[in-house]
Amino acid sequence: MALPRATFLLSARDQPGLVARLAGFFYERALNIVDGSDHVEAGDEGTARFFTRLVIELDDPRLARDAIERAFGELAATFDSTWSVGYSDRPSRIAILVTKESACLYDLILRQRQGELACEIPLIIGNHATLEPVAQSFGIPFSLLPITPDTKRAQEDRMLALFASHRIDLVVLARYMQVLTDDFLRAAPPVINIHHGFLPAFQGARPYHQARARGVKIIGATAHYATIELDEGPIIEQDVARVSHQMPIDELIRVGRDIERNVLSRAVRAHLERRVVVHDGRTIVL
Amino acid sequence: MALPRATFLLSARDQPGLVARLAGFFYERALNIVDGSDHVEAGDEGTARFFTRLVIELDDPRLARDAIERAFGELAATFDSTWSVGYSDRPSRIAILVTKESACLYDLILRQRQGELACEIPLIIGNHATLEPVAQSFGIPFSLLPITPDTKRAQEDRMLALFASHRIDLVVLARYMQVLTDDFLRAAPPVINIHHGFLPAFQGARPYHQARARGVKIIGATAHYATIELDEGPIIEQDVARVSHQMPIDELIRVGRDIERNVLSRAVRAHLERRVVVHDGRTIVL
Amino acid sequence: MALPRATFLLSARDQPGLVARLAGFFYERALNIVDGSDHVEAGDEGTARFFTRLVIELDDPRLARDAIERAFGELAATFDSTWSVGYSDRPSRIAILVTKESACLYDLILRQRQGELACEIPLIIGNHATLEPVAQSFGIPFSLLPITPDTKRAQEDRMLALFASHRIDLVVLARYMQVLTDDFLRAAPPVINIHHGFLPAFQGARPYHQARARGVKIIGATAHYATIELDEGPIIEQDVARVSHQMPIDELIRVGRDIERNVLSRAVRAHLERRVVVHDGRTIVL
Amino acid sequence: MALPRATFLLSARDQPGLVARLAGFFYERALNIVDGSDHVEAGDEGTARFFTRLVIELDDPRLARDAIERAFGELAATFDSTWSVGYSDRPSRIAILVTKESACLYDLILRQRQGELACEIPLIIGNHATLEPVAQSFGIPFSLLPITPDTKRAQEDRMLALFASHRIDLVVLARYMQVLTDDFLRAAPPVINIHHGFLPAFQGARPYHQARARGVKIIGATAHYATIELDEGPIIEQDVARVSHQMPIDELIRVGRDIERNVLSRAVRAHLERRVVVHDGRTIVL
Repeated sequence: MALPRATFLLSARDQPGLVARLAGFFYERALNIVDGSDHVEAGDEGTARFFTRLVIELDDPRLARDAIERAFGELAATFDSTWSVGYSDRPSRIAILVTKESACLYDLILRQRQGELACEIPLIIGNHATLEPVAQSFGIPFSLLPITPDTKRAQEDRMLALFASHRIDLVVLARYMQVLTDDFLRAAPPVINIHHGFLPAFQGARPYHQARARGVKIIGATAHYATIELDEGPIIEQDVARVSHQMPIDELIRVGRDIERNVLSRAVRAHLERRVVVHDGRTIVL
Repeated sequence: MALPRATFLLSARDQPGLVARLAGFFYERALNIVDGSDHVEAGDEGTARFFTRLVIELDDPRLARDAIERAFGELAATFDSTWSVGYSDRPSRIAILVTKESACLYDLILRQRQGELACEIPLIIGNHATLEPVAQSFGIPFSLLPITPDTKRAQEDRMLALFASHRIDLVVLARYMQVLTDDFLRAAPPVINIHHGFLPAFQGARPYHQARARGVKIIGATAHYATIELDEGPIIEQDVARVSHQMPIDELIRVGRDIERNVLSRAVRAHLERRVVVHDGRTIVL
Repeated sequence: MALPRATFLLSARDQPGLVARLAGFFYERALNIVDGSDHVEAGDEGTARFFTRLVIELDDPRLARDAIERAFGELAATFDSTWSVGYSDRPSRIAILVTKESACLYDLILRQRQGELACEIPLIIGNHATLEPVAQSFGIPFSLLPITPDTKRAQEDRMLALFASHRIDLVVLARYMQVLTDDFLRAAPPVINIHHGFLPAFQGARPYHQARARGVKIIGATAHYATIELDEGPIIEQDVARVSHQMPIDELIRVGRDIERNVLSRAVRAHLERRVVVHDGRTIVL
Repeated sequence: MALPRATFLLSARDQPGLVARLAGFFYERALNIVDGSDHVEAGDEGTARFFTRLVIELDDPRLARDAIERAFGELAATFDSTWSVGYSDRPSRIAILVTKESACLYDLILRQRQGELACEIPLIIGNHATLEPVAQSFGIPFSLLPITPDTKRAQEDRMLALFASHRIDLVVLARYMQVLTDDFLRAAPPVINIHHGFLPAFQGARPYHQARARGVKIIGATAHYATIELDEGPIIEQDVARVSHQMPIDELIRVGRDIERNVLSRAVRAHLERRVVVHDGRTIVL
């Protein structure tokens, strides 16, 4: 059986000796770094930032995780840093929000069942009932929360309550066709959205129609963290496909659907693997 | 030796029997269609358009080209159509406009020498002298026409005069860092420009800097016909490459340079092969 | 409602006037060609072949299809040709053969439900029971036919009987981990297989392991018609993805799974749309 | 002005504390690691290998490089390791071997002039004179060494003498259409070859013809270290492009040429940047 692993994600002001001190920290404790990557984002006059992701094998089950965390926190406090840690035996719990389109929902569930996404999916919320049978066929609870202008606030509150009761760590908008309020976004766990266009081109509604009207030769999709500015959140992943004048709009939509599901799943995977840091409106994907 | 070929490019109101009548026209004259493609652009109530490109082998050297053109013109007049024809033994003559960057210029010249671009390159114009040695090393006349706000009109007139005296059919802006005036664009032959961004994202100046600031995961380049609205002309070709947070700006520029040269050369090639029709602000590339 | 369509697929010895005569045939009958493409495969001394796919809109429901077919057959007989025709209101019926891997099976079913694959799926056969619940969740009959060396012939006969009773037009091997006998392949409808390697590299078993051992930087998958020579059948579609030394074998398998499902679905779609002609061991995909 | 940099490339038996000790080595000496990456290649029972590339900024010009190298060597000797170091102010010197095709040669020279390849190109050798003018136009000495079965050994000896007198560090076969002898490969500096096929498919001669005959939908090119087994050397880089049945052989060759030049240049760049380690017949590209 695979040993549990801890993944540390740290962002610090760049300074000499960071790698040596971090690597030394684990070496002294006989903890093996099984995967690691780092990045320095250049900046002016002491604004450069250092980012690192370190995966540690926890081969001794009696290891006191809180003791390690405490000691790591003391080290991290000596640099100007923020950090977090996750454990492979405590998978994230995600809620998926949907409307009527099934492709992204299926893709997330199937990859989770396949073992490609290290998470639990205890909750699916739809503003339409269309995809309830999909949730049921996989035995996942489905909450129907239709939204009208009048009910939006109340339904968003219900969603937040559901996130709390299901201990949700991440919300995934899998072609959820509703704009969320600022209050909701401030109160919710991190939210990943899939935009069916190659941002920053084709923001807003009907991006494939926009793309066809402009005559682009390549279309795309973008997964990003949802922020208060619609379609302006930090981009986690994008992908594209070549199109031609011969493709009518429904063919663009079909090609786009394949890109969307792949891009969304890759973004969710990167987030779950604790690879993504947001810095200055952009993501560093370690 | 390869026989000469005629390439007909026709755009007509869509109507029954177009293919049959066009194919019949050449069959009756014992002219072999060696390559053909067509496209119907759907539209409302009789606005659908039919586009076709037909390549004919001219196996009899005594064939009167003007007689065929006259007869084809009579047929075409019976549909609501526009058309043009080109001949493989009368290659297009292109002028390349440059500033300081050499990659696109080299790519166009090397492909022409290699036989990939069926054209002649009798003229290179630079607003700086930087690339004059490149032109010289291939024996191509180079005209230095520096541009200042005061001299712009006069230099554009000189360019137009050079196009006329060199019988230029196509102007290629190979990273020419000057905005052209409306009057120039109206008077010049067709102009193809390479924009070093994935349009419609990142219009205007320093698109790679814009792309990095936005944190996109994919960058691109766009070849388009130059029109009066900057960066709004019909897109002929685009391509992209994946980038990461690890790449500093000069790495984006380096990766972008490869995309630019390929995209520009493919667009020029499509134009020279008489594959491109502009319709409703977009291109059909047959 | 969309009108029914007929799709003619024809292969003929290349000769002057084919396009004119075929287009004329439909024009005389006031049948509109709504989509068409053709290709000439060059050859020595009269061996060149002409291939065409013509989609006709059947706007008059009283049209006698058999009369059109008879007339078309008479025309086709005057060239040295083979042809077939299919109708959009008589979708193909496909049987999917599986073992334990679910990704391709889900992808085919979901695309069919989504309307991307114009077919019916009345039958799934597994040599293991693993995927029976998937079939059930979509209400598709599942036949369990385990194979041992001793039972292979008898089970193959049972499969052929199932194909007959379900009027199967196409068999899809969606990661079916059994080699089929020559007799079976001769008796069965066309069979499309997905090979999880970039043919002709990495034939046979465990292609991802082979790819990793050779240190390739790109892996792929190949959909092809199954023929008696294993992994030698005509290739319908391929695709690839970039990999790196950092990916352990299970990561290659994960990346490959995405390629496989896309490639297989695209190949099945091309076949169902009657775009694929086999010529000289290769496919022409019109 | 940019400070000079040292790039260390090390391969060691994997063991705890390697990262900490290497990072500590430079930290103690106040040497800043400006770029670093590593990889562990899993293996059975103590055969796992650790690879790392560390780029150090040499901000003190008085630094005694040989003292650092000596100290690093002493550290490295305490692990079971091999290592090398290069300096950015001592660029590699490469010899390019050509026959008649110019695309790869131009690409390498233009990228070097552009600053994309940190090397010098003091020598081009051709077995035909075709590309001598290209060498001359860039002011690079060209040696014509035609090869016949009788002269092969003598000419290879002349090449080795030229490599020695020009202090060549790397030999690049830029479509050099001659098989090199084992003796030559043993005596020469590292040799990178471009194979115009997607290895391991289509080894040997005329790979594009092989690809067309097999009907593949994607073609590729492969840059690899030349070894005694032809086309079996460790692969450094590969890339591919989609092709169709419509493309005659000369179109495949044209598309392939673009892949070849990009793949070869990327492989040479990776080698020059000291990113490539050969391990077990494969490359790790850090």
